[in-house]
Amino acid sequence: MLSFESDYTTGCHPLILQRLMETNLVSQPGYGFDEYCLSAAEKIKRECSCPSAEVEFLTGGTQTNQVVIASMIMDGDGVVSADTGHINVHEAGAIEITGHKVFGLEHTEGKISASQVSDFVDTYYADANHEHMVRPAMVYISHPTEYGTLYSKKELTDLSKVCREKGLILFLDGARLGYGLMSYKTDVSLKDIASLTDVFYIGGTKVGALCGEAVVFTHSNKPERFLARKKQRGALLAKGRLLGVQFDTLFTNGLYYEISKNAIDRAEELKALLLRKDYRFHMDSPTNQQFVVVDNKKYENLKKVVRTGFWETVDKDHVAIRFATSWCTTKEDILALEEVL
Amino acid sequence: MLSFESDYTTGCHPLILQRLMETNLVSQPGYGFDEYCLSAAEKIKRECSCPSAEVEFLTGGTQTNQVVIASMIMDGDGVVSADTGHINVHEAGAIEITGHKVFGLEHTEGKISASQVSDFVDTYYADANHEHMVRPAMVYISHPTEYGTLYSKKELTDLSKVCREKGLILFLDGARLGYGLMSYKTDVSLKDIASLTDVFYIGGTKVGALCGEAVVFTHSNKPERFLARKKQRGALLAKGRLLGVQFDTLFTNGLYYEISKNAIDRAEELKALLLRKDYRFHMDSPTNQQFVVVDNKKYENLKKVVRTGFWETVDKDHVAIRFATSWCTTKEDILALEEVL
Amino acid sequence: MLSFESDYTTGCHPLILQRLMETNLVSQPGYGFDEYCLSAAEKIKRECSCPSAEVEFLTGGTQTNQVVIASMIMDGDGVVSADTGHINVHEAGAIEITGHKVFGLEHTEGKISASQVSDFVDTYYADANHEHMVRPAMVYISHPTEYGTLYSKKELTDLSKVCREKGLILFLDGARLGYGLMSYKTDVSLKDIASLTDVFYIGGTKVGALCGEAVVFTHSNKPERFLARKKQRGALLAKGRLLGVQFDTLFTNGLYYEISKNAIDRAEELKALLLRKDYRFHMDSPTNQQFVVVDNKKYENLKKVVRTGFWETVDKDHVAIRFATSWCTTKEDILALEEVL
Amino acid sequence: MLSFESDYTTGCHPLILQRLMETNLVSQPGYGFDEYCLSAAEKIKRECSCPSAEVEFLTGGTQTNQVVIASMIMDGDGVVSADTGHINVHEAGAIEITGHKVFGLEHTEGKISASQVSDFVDTYYADANHEHMVRPAMVYISHPTEYGTLYSKKELTDLSKVCREKGLILFLDGARLGYGLMSYKTDVSLKDIASLTDVFYIGGTKVGALCGEAVVFTHSNKPERFLARKKQRGALLAKGRLLGVQFDTLFTNGLYYEISKNAIDRAEELKALLLRKDYRFHMDSPTNQQFVVVDNKKYENLKKVVRTGFWETVDKDHVAIRFATSWCTTKEDILALEEVL
Repeated sequence: MLSFESDYTTGCHPLILQRLMETNLVSQPGYGFDEYCLSAAEKIKRECSCPSAEVEFLTGGTQTNQVVIASMIMDGDGVVSADTGHINVHEAGAIEITGHKVFGLEHTEGKISASQVSDFVDTYYADANHEHMVRPAMVYISHPTEYGTLYSKKELTDLSKVCREKGLILFLDGARLGYGLMSYKTDVSLKDIASLTDVFYIGGTKVGALCGEAVVFTHSNKPERFLARKKQRGALLAKGRLLGVQFDTLFTNGLYYEISKNAIDRAEELKALLLRKDYRFHMDSPTNQQFVVVDNKKYENLKKVVRTGFWETVDKDHVAIRFATSWCTTKEDILALEEVL
Repeated sequence: MLSFESDYTTGCHPLILQRLMETNLVSQPGYGFDEYCLSAAEKIKRECSCPSAEVEFLTGGTQTNQVVIASMIMDGDGVVSADTGHINVHEAGAIEITGHKVFGLEHTEGKISASQVSDFVDTYYADANHEHMVRPAMVYISHPTEYGTLYSKKELTDLSKVCREKGLILFLDGARLGYGLMSYKTDVSLKDIASLTDVFYIGGTKVGALCGEAVVFTHSNKPERFLARKKQRGALLAKGRLLGVQFDTLFTNGLYYEISKNAIDRAEELKALLLRKDYRFHMDSPTNQQFVVVDNKKYENLKKVVRTGFWETVDKDHVAIRFATSWCTTKEDILALEEVL
Repeated sequence: MLSFESDYTTGCHPLILQRLMETNLVSQPGYGFDEYCLSAAEKIKRECSCPSAEVEFLTGGTQTNQVVIASMIMDGDGVVSADTGHINVHEAGAIEITGHKVFGLEHTEGKISASQVSDFVDTYYADANHEHMVRPAMVYISHPTEYGTLYSKKELTDLSKVCREKGLILFLDGARLGYGLMSYKTDVSLKDIASLTDVFYIGGTKVGALCGEAVVFTHSNKPERFLARKKQRGALLAKGRLLGVQFDTLFTNGLYYEISKNAIDRAEELKALLLRKDYRFHMDSPTNQQFVVVDNKKYENLKKVVRTGFWETVDKDHVAIRFATSWCTTKEDILALEEVL
Repeated sequence: MLSFESDYTTGCHPLILQRLMETNLVSQPGYGFDEYCLSAAEKIKRECSCPSAEVEFLTGGTQTNQVVIASMIMDGDGVVSADTGHINVHEAGAIEITGHKVFGLEHTEGKISASQVSDFVDTYYADANHEHMVRPAMVYISHPTEYGTLYSKKELTDLSKVCREKGLILFLDGARLGYGLMSYKTDVSLKDIASLTDVFYIGGTKVGALCGEAVVFTHSNKPERFLARKKQRGALLAKGRLLGVQFDTLFTNGLYYEISKNAIDRAEELKALLLRKDYRFHMDSPTNQQFVVVDNKKYENLKKVVRTGFWETVDKDHVAIRFATSWCTTKEDILALEEVL
């Protein structure tokens, strides 16, 4: 059966496994103080052109969102997000369990705009009762979004400006950041992100690693006692080297970009294929996730030959489904898909 | 200066103070085991025609919402509410701090409908990823709503039916319940509420008491160790008698209804007055809160002669303001208002 | 039946009720912005000789401990307390529910010493793994303690010094503070407490009020957005005037001290009586609570004529019980007790 | 430099890496629904002789303790532990952040006894005020303990009996379970543990895996919505296969036992060596951790030739240090150590 349901159905890039083998018997300190973590952090700071950045490694996306948010805002504060944001929908309440409200603003293709944020914050402060209300203290955006779409440099810059003017932290969830960086249609670089956000992360789990996300606090703003904060949330690996080795490998010789580019190249081929086959697109995505709308019968037939991700019910007769490419999708996979469609 | 800004600007009904004086030196157990609490609970159960009900007293509305919700749903569960619901807007995150998400559904005059709830829950369960999402486990409604509007018996019955069918708890916030019960336009009785909801509360703070809300668990469904739950949330008064005496007084000789009726009678006079004066109503409210839209200049002028509650900015030139009546609003107050308008 | 079981079995001092009646119809803003709260806060600041103090009113002791602690320390921080401290034993986990550990140090008559705190903190920082441990960030003491005992000025000064040196917040729970201040055996004044602690509270519930505690942040150190913090914990009364009127009355013409002195005078008479009757004291208390050890049979007999508080099981044949006096204990009550003993 | 400081300084057993490579390109569902997790769970159930067991995989020890405890007890409940228990000392408050108190009972070589638990629970229920106190709802033990010691079958059986009689959940932290099972001095088998506890986990991180712990709910008692509970705590890996492959490998051909036995064999040789060298033991440990007391000067000298784990300060002149063996400690390592000591 062909597998296009997600970008986390296989293991990791072979170079990572090779590096795990090479380093396996080297004795290293635990809890992220190993030399691989240190090296990976340096490489990431360099890629970001951000010497005052502080880099921390965590295991997964939801965990990262939880630890970052809970350690950067105070009780009574909330996070502004697209209503489709991962933290607002698919994290089983991981932000609320830390005591914080998520404000879901209406999304446009998975995105929110600077003016929406500005209006929301202004409305809050204009309300005579705002001291009785959760204070918007952080803006959370995903890039790529949950729909595979991307912020333009202009949009990001505007969001950044609004956040700085109004005193909100700008946090970018980069669970699939590589695909955003290598998109044919982006004008946003890693350096841009590092200079425009307060904190963001570079996703590993969905970009060729077994697990792991690299959080970048962009301006010496890592929360106090961050190690304890990770520990307290069950997010500190004893063998932190597992994360260090992976990110050190991903940021050696541009592997992270290479992996991401492969997924993008395949996604563009996939998109062309779906267009040729007259599929109706749910949203125009410039990254590794492609969403199409099919009727229920078609979906049942597709299920027999290819695994796709169920996305959402569109109406009683149609569903949106996701095709995702990844580091290991090959030209052959696309050709095989062509045959079965 | 005339005062119509809210229903909690004065003390309490004089009979309550009188009763506090009469009972002041009687030695009673603490923590709600005093005879006044016991008597008040019995009276409330009788008024509800609900012998299997369990009644508990708490100090304020937000506290009650917090303790009730946190003790009735589990981690990973959320509460469905109108987006204008008190818990969603004006409690500074009191529900989220207990770890629970509030789902804000689009309101219609402060209300949500059975079909909205039904659709929301169905969509949740239809989502292939719902195990990764916060589960809707409770429906929260306010009656009267934050806009002073009321559910009809039909609407409540439908909500109740949907909740029972789909396994959600129905919780009614009755911070201003008296005004709902005594509205000229309601067909909902206390007994109806007791039979249609799983838990609700009878507001005291905004209906003539100094403080206090009486929670009714309608069918022997008081959460295990509820005393400890109250204590743990800082919600257990050592001198629980303060709540007992107040509710016992309010439910003796129909005082609660009498107070509420006074406010409703005055509100109807107020409404007639505002209509005569050509005020534009923000929403048609059948209870003690009347909302009108005025332009900014008018608002500035009004501020000089009468205190009203700022409600919300309508547009750049207009605001909605609230006139509220209460147990102690007199015919003279309405006449005095007529003069200054 | 004679009632000596606690200091919260009756209502409040009659002057409070009188003042509630006098002010009942005066229209006032809600949420603690009423003139009574403002006046009470000023009076308390004056009594503390502490112009930079900030005063806030809350409803009960556990609530106050919860709101103060949760708003002053960060995630991963804990509170050092006597193992007998109220927060460690009798608050159903009100501190833990906010995410903080309570470190219970071995008490001596309900107290902990500066050297204990110093050793505890030093041991923490000396531990190579302390970043993996909860950080001691606050010291909580009760004065009077749960055993009715008192810190001397020297002991308080030493604790204060250690806290300042080591960067811990010193928080004094004064649920029964009046009795401490009026004890025949104390050298600690309200001013001393205001100058030695970072935050403390003046108990009302157990010292003649219906409810209420006045928190004093002693040096402009009230946590940011404290109103929202109170609201979020369900601790903000709509009719804040209830607290304002009570504390304004208690701090007018020295009523708080007068009430407390009455309880202390009666307690000294009670103590003399118990000594004459050859009761064995569980602990030597200089305040309004007197603890004696009786055998089980004696306890059964006492129960028939006087209500006392069960304190703890001493051994299989003996229990410790508490006699408490209060604002309304009279000389006649003591004489009546003498007769039945 | 020789490395004996812990059992998590190297990677993982080579067979695990080999298996990761073999399975790397196999497409599998995420979130623990992969075939490796299913297979590993079956193997573990078989090893436990416990067909009604339910097995779940988590990433690390602290995370496992947090997720298990928070999902099995209710608000207001606490966990009884040795005061030296990992949850009480070295998890930065991971249990408290979920709202639960840890009761630290005085340990004896890292252990607590059935009679201690029984007394503690009886004292709780005998207290007239116990409804105001955190309820002991679970007993947490480590096996091996943090000191490397082990419960005997008799001790475990007694604890189990007390827990069942008194309605507490018995939870065994087996972060280093393999070393306990393969100790020369134990009479406790995996089957015993499965039949005597309600929930326990088989540690991977410290027993030859890169990360991972296998939780066993022993009698169909996995908490409702456990997947969502994991997700909400940031504990659900997208590529759950990483855990599945590791545990499937560890429980194929007895690898888990073999790894553990190697560490035990080496630890016994190490112990003999330390005895020959006249080291003073801090505690007699029958597992892979050996604790000795050395004076500060000796410690400084040792540091130049071998890495050991700092354990605790014994007095101003002495410290306790830990030598740990693991899956990859060789006879040669012990000989090399002999040379440098």
